[in-house]
Amino acid sequence: MTNTGFLDTIDSQLDWQRDLYKDFHREPELGLEEHKTSDRIESELKDMGLRAERISATGLVAVIENGKGPTVLARADIDALPISEDTGLDYSSTIDGVMHACGHDIHITSLLGAVRLLNENLNAWSGTYIALFQPSEENAAGAKAMIDDGLTSKIPKPDIAYAQHVMPMPTGTVNTKAGPVLSAGDSVKITVHGRGAHGSMPHLSVDPVVLAATIVLRLQTIVSRETDPGEFAVVTIGASNSGSKSNIIPDRAELLLNLRTYDMTVRDRIIASIERIVKGECEAAGSPKEPSFEYYDQFPLTDNDEDANDAVTKAFEDYFDDGVVLPATPATASEDFSEIPDAFEIPYAYWMIGCADADAYKKAAEAGTVNSDIPANHSPQFAPVIDPTLEIATKAQVIAALSQLGS
Amino acid sequence: MTNTGFLDTIDSQLDWQRDLYKDFHREPELGLEEHKTSDRIESELKDMGLRAERISATGLVAVIENGKGPTVLARADIDALPISEDTGLDYSSTIDGVMHACGHDIHITSLLGAVRLLNENLNAWSGTYIALFQPSEENAAGAKAMIDDGLTSKIPKPDIAYAQHVMPMPTGTVNTKAGPVLSAGDSVKITVHGRGAHGSMPHLSVDPVVLAATIVLRLQTIVSRETDPGEFAVVTIGASNSGSKSNIIPDRAELLLNLRTYDMTVRDRIIASIERIVKGECEAAGSPKEPSFEYYDQFPLTDNDEDANDAVTKAFEDYFDDGVVLPATPATASEDFSEIPDAFEIPYAYWMIGCADADAYKKAAEAGTVNSDIPANHSPQFAPVIDPTLEIATKAQVIAALSQLGS
Amino acid sequence: MTNTGFLDTIDSQLDWQRDLYKDFHREPELGLEEHKTSDRIESELKDMGLRAERISATGLVAVIENGKGPTVLARADIDALPISEDTGLDYSSTIDGVMHACGHDIHITSLLGAVRLLNENLNAWSGTYIALFQPSEENAAGAKAMIDDGLTSKIPKPDIAYAQHVMPMPTGTVNTKAGPVLSAGDSVKITVHGRGAHGSMPHLSVDPVVLAATIVLRLQTIVSRETDPGEFAVVTIGASNSGSKSNIIPDRAELLLNLRTYDMTVRDRIIASIERIVKGECEAAGSPKEPSFEYYDQFPLTDNDEDANDAVTKAFEDYFDDGVVLPATPATASEDFSEIPDAFEIPYAYWMIGCADADAYKKAAEAGTVNSDIPANHSPQFAPVIDPTLEIATKAQVIAALSQLGS
Amino acid sequence: MTNTGFLDTIDSQLDWQRDLYKDFHREPELGLEEHKTSDRIESELKDMGLRAERISATGLVAVIENGKGPTVLARADIDALPISEDTGLDYSSTIDGVMHACGHDIHITSLLGAVRLLNENLNAWSGTYIALFQPSEENAAGAKAMIDDGLTSKIPKPDIAYAQHVMPMPTGTVNTKAGPVLSAGDSVKITVHGRGAHGSMPHLSVDPVVLAATIVLRLQTIVSRETDPGEFAVVTIGASNSGSKSNIIPDRAELLLNLRTYDMTVRDRIIASIERIVKGECEAAGSPKEPSFEYYDQFPLTDNDEDANDAVTKAFEDYFDDGVVLPATPATASEDFSEIPDAFEIPYAYWMIGCADADAYKKAAEAGTVNSDIPANHSPQFAPVIDPTLEIATKAQVIAALSQLGS
Repeated sequence: MTNTGFLDTIDSQLDWQRDLYKDFHREPELGLEEHKTSDRIESELKDMGLRAERISATGLVAVIENGKGPTVLARADIDALPISEDTGLDYSSTIDGVMHACGHDIHITSLLGAVRLLNENLNAWSGTYIALFQPSEENAAGAKAMIDDGLTSKIPKPDIAYAQHVMPMPTGTVNTKAGPVLSAGDSVKITVHGRGAHGSMPHLSVDPVVLAATIVLRLQTIVSRETDPGEFAVVTIGASNSGSKSNIIPDRAELLLNLRTYDMTVRDRIIASIERIVKGECEAAGSPKEPSFEYYDQFPLTDNDEDANDAVTKAFEDYFDDGVVLPATPATASEDFSEIPDAFEIPYAYWMIGCADADAYKKAAEAGTVNSDIPANHSPQFAPVIDPTLEIATKAQVIAALSQLGS
Repeated sequence: MTNTGFLDTIDSQLDWQRDLYKDFHREPELGLEEHKTSDRIESELKDMGLRAERISATGLVAVIENGKGPTVLARADIDALPISEDTGLDYSSTIDGVMHACGHDIHITSLLGAVRLLNENLNAWSGTYIALFQPSEENAAGAKAMIDDGLTSKIPKPDIAYAQHVMPMPTGTVNTKAGPVLSAGDSVKITVHGRGAHGSMPHLSVDPVVLAATIVLRLQTIVSRETDPGEFAVVTIGASNSGSKSNIIPDRAELLLNLRTYDMTVRDRIIASIERIVKGECEAAGSPKEPSFEYYDQFPLTDNDEDANDAVTKAFEDYFDDGVVLPATPATASEDFSEIPDAFEIPYAYWMIGCADADAYKKAAEAGTVNSDIPANHSPQFAPVIDPTLEIATKAQVIAALSQLGS
Repeated sequence: MTNTGFLDTIDSQLDWQRDLYKDFHREPELGLEEHKTSDRIESELKDMGLRAERISATGLVAVIENGKGPTVLARADIDALPISEDTGLDYSSTIDGVMHACGHDIHITSLLGAVRLLNENLNAWSGTYIALFQPSEENAAGAKAMIDDGLTSKIPKPDIAYAQHVMPMPTGTVNTKAGPVLSAGDSVKITVHGRGAHGSMPHLSVDPVVLAATIVLRLQTIVSRETDPGEFAVVTIGASNSGSKSNIIPDRAELLLNLRTYDMTVRDRIIASIERIVKGECEAAGSPKEPSFEYYDQFPLTDNDEDANDAVTKAFEDYFDDGVVLPATPATASEDFSEIPDAFEIPYAYWMIGCADADAYKKAAEAGTVNSDIPANHSPQFAPVIDPTLEIATKAQVIAALSQLGS
Repeated sequence: MTNTGFLDTIDSQLDWQRDLYKDFHREPELGLEEHKTSDRIESELKDMGLRAERISATGLVAVIENGKGPTVLARADIDALPISEDTGLDYSSTIDGVMHACGHDIHITSLLGAVRLLNENLNAWSGTYIALFQPSEENAAGAKAMIDDGLTSKIPKPDIAYAQHVMPMPTGTVNTKAGPVLSAGDSVKITVHGRGAHGSMPHLSVDPVVLAATIVLRLQTIVSRETDPGEFAVVTIGASNSGSKSNIIPDRAELLLNLRTYDMTVRDRIIASIERIVKGECEAAGSPKEPSFEYYDQFPLTDNDEDANDAVTKAFEDYFDDGVVLPATPATASEDFSEIPDAFEIPYAYWMIGCADADAYKKAAEAGTVNSDIPANHSPQFAPVIDPTLEIATKAQVIAALSQLGS
């Protein structure tokens, strides 16, 4: 039986965690620019007597080797977003136009808290614990950057990997689910070409504004007609831009698309459909130049290993009170976390931590206004309730580790 | 100077013409089925001592050779339309669903009247006069049928050709114009292919209903974007049909298009654009089979020879009172008449005869309601005022002939 | 424990069932016209010593009152489809253009078989068994017709209702599922109004062909943009028809839509969206008259009661060999069966019977070509394999009954 | 008979005009900022002994009162464009991103040349000559600015007004036309509102990208279906912009439209159609907020008075050699010149001066490549040939004046 008794000692370190959280929240940094954040994490680990290794410019790994047993990797993402905070909190962001609006500051702080608890209670477990602080999750660039910098050869191969994310569900809950839990996400920049002309001479033009409009409408049919009604698929055109003056027909249009799927076959088919549609519409328009497709911000599917998820769910249920551990609904958000276990070819589990005010959530749920009343991730009003979010998130990391490393 | 004095004798034959007109109006026949009509014309010509030659099943030609001089061809079209008459006239059509709704009965009667006048006054002119009664103008099939049946080798080569048409302008007017006076007209039947499926399984289909909709909208841009704003062009989709049950996705859609242009270069470009658009949209849709294009009812441009028109206009102005001869506005109707002079490679003139009640027209014009108040050709209410329409139309044919053959 | 031993005696009646099946297959009748079918069912019941009561012109109910116990209703639908059979079977339809292409002949024959087994083994169960033969399922008209004709007052109130349907899954399987198993289905006929005109004068028209095209494309967004990506919804425009001649702009367009949903809230929202979109597009077009919406063929959601389904599933699993009872996937087909239990306000279970050749299915499944290779319901090639489909379907009806009535 | 003999003395002033032209070309200024330009014009007029009055900040008027006779106003526009010159000329613009790409520098220089000729030959004419240098033609703001600043009360009321414009026709030609010669032009900024949401949650949004696409396509029908095919109308959507990130559904879209018409009734109908379409599409989309329409850059129709044009055309034909004076084709460019004569309620004539290299033009015309080979106004390569463009333009102003003022 796993010894989780030492988790009670969290009380003595929560003030440190709260201050740490507010510090990170005050000084958010964008993806791949998390230098101060990385330095602070390193300094905190050093205070615990741990050595952190930089992998990529702003990524960090600390390894606690504690005898025989499996190796567990826990990952926290550390980057912030280009959003202007509008929470009114006294520890609001001090950096103009940058905000921890996705809760990565909670992730950092709870993983540091878990490391400290595990490091101070080495007798309660055995094996190897790897705390990985990953940059630039928001741009799907950080996991890749660490892997490209040799992650798999620089640390011991883990047997399993864990990550967690705060979500606008009631604080005091942990939410798990086997199988797909976050969608795959792909962005595409499409440029289509027309022929510019004076606005009064449309016959000398190939009008890219009209071309873009036909593409936008035709793309709707990928979901409405080409996708099995029981399958999950989103094709959003987040931006469609062409021209700048009323009387000049421009010579190109640019579309920015975002796709969300839970099945890589569906994803591949949608991408093929997008290219087919855009090319067909360009031919219909008499476009003088092939359209271009530039793929970016490509997030993998987060697809929890059934056994890994079951084990961690059971451990959570054993430890937490009734009503804390809930089934998660798959979210259409995306993550690059899974690239790390995939690089090691190991199973993983990813769970959600509720962070919304529980009373406000209950009220909104009853009124059917959760979507409008409870600020979600990426909102300028997103403000995780610190207690007990931080405590639950820290304990969840420790419990997950102990489910493998506990004696 | 041309001797037009004998035109006054028309008074003695107008009752015969009025009765003839009503007889034709009562027994309309559709294109290529004008057997009774053709027989009656032949019988009337025989009464005048003239021999009529059948060219094609229902076409007729009578030639009056009257000494030296040029050869003039005058053509009247003789077919009716699949329209149910709704005029309330006591000489209304007795044939269900068939009506002389385009005034060809006026054309026949006035040409017969002109033949009689010329034949009874041979001393007033010299040369050769050819009266040609052409079937199936409405389907663009009759001129072709006569040419295919050897028209150019069966009659003397004319020096010039004339035709006239009643129009919803005030009776008592003759309207002329050099250059393009009736548009070219083309019909296209387009079939596009999808893949049928049960309505609940769109992902197994290629939806031709959606495909047809994208084509319909994209085709609008031929006029709105691809045609010089100063050029005349109409692209009408008169019919778009696909499917018959709500829960079966059909496997094809059919579009019927009609084009109107005043310039064959514009016409050719529009046809190329239609094919480009339909093919591009089929590719965008992933259509499993090439679309098909079937062209029909193709009417040539009616493009009056400048000299021919000037001569006939001057002759009209010399004979008729002031205010009778007016400039015509180009109409978007189409005609196959010009195929006849084109087969002979000779110039031609085509003019319009007003046939609407003059007072009603004047009132409607002042109220700006001509389009809604004055029934136009092809309306079930189209009802030419017999007097003086018939007299003017008969005289116009004679005057045009005398402008070449008068001594 | 339920006594199911007598089910082995089915062997002695299977030849009778096979012949009966082929007879029904040879003489299919369309919905509400199932007179011969109904007569034959009545005659077969009479042969068993049972009296059948007509409810509606072609509906039939036979009641076996067999002592104390619950009342079970089992329903079979009896109508055929307007489809020309193309199976090549020696017992193919002899009625031109009509075919049992949905397997209702299997439903009739297996319910008659179940009635015979239960009626010949009255000692094996106690309670009341109601066999209901319902007309016109395909048009969503038959359940309603029987209810309107007083069904609920003419028979004893059942405690539970059952129905089954053959599906293109491997023969030898029974497929069950709690909750939504068949979608709600709604058809809508939409008429939008333009203003007709000659094809060459678009400016005098309000073009309904273009209006219909904009509606078709805009309707795509109900699924692609307005529906939660995780929700099931189909909006199919099975027919879009306007105009008949290339050169006449018509004055109206007609659209036939079919909707499929698994949630009545979603359904209601979609209907509201359809009306909003059509009205908005009519205003954008300057349509001269309000569009009309005519709802028809409205099928309810088939939403299996959890307890009813669990009980019947368990009974199937107890009786059949391993591998026979499988979880069903919700189908986008629709049914009016549930209107009957809803009229009585009782729970129901509805399951699927595999009827495709098992080897052919396996091969197609491996090749990923089930959809194209295995003819589904409503296909002219749909041909249930008689054995063991008929036996399994008959036994399933008996077992379901015994799960309530067995001693 | 008019004495035009003194026009030969232009030879002695052409070098001055050429230098002046290059100076203006080197230092272009945007509309309403033509301070240096205005100062230089004033200084040149002063050198001729004339006093210039500022009307509006950068507008100028010089009046030569020379005895009895009519009063003639000649106007030159003086502003440049926000275009980066790419002609390679040694007198190219020295101002980054600003260029006399519409030839207003020719207009200034030729009007100054005309003033000098008239001022030095007062005995050759009598009456009053008003030279008006107007700012900000490109933004349709300059004529209005001068009128708002009291133009009509600050100068003698003219009897007639003239203006001219260089065009990419062969240098050495003057092109005139009675009636509409430049189109009316209107710009509209349309803002439509959606509801923003994360790209993965379209059902929480009202998607303005899709809304804008439906509007763009529906707007095509104003020209293709609602406008008489014989009427001139252009509806260009020069810009359609919405959103900036692939995964954020934006909350609005902005369209910039430009209209061109030759008939104010048509213009008003098009504007009504635009508003009807946009509002209807917003309703179809369920847009949460009324769209807004902001009209700007509204240019009047330039509609030459028939008598004024005939008189000036005849005067040009009398003076210039054969082949110089040609009929102009109406251009779809627009001008605010006519606001000045309209403010005085006087007739006007506006003609075009060819400025393209005559040989290059001839070659391009033969190859059918004028549109692609001859840089037109507003092109970064637009480069009027100085000789004889400047001489012809100067003489044209003098001849037009003398047609009224000559003795």
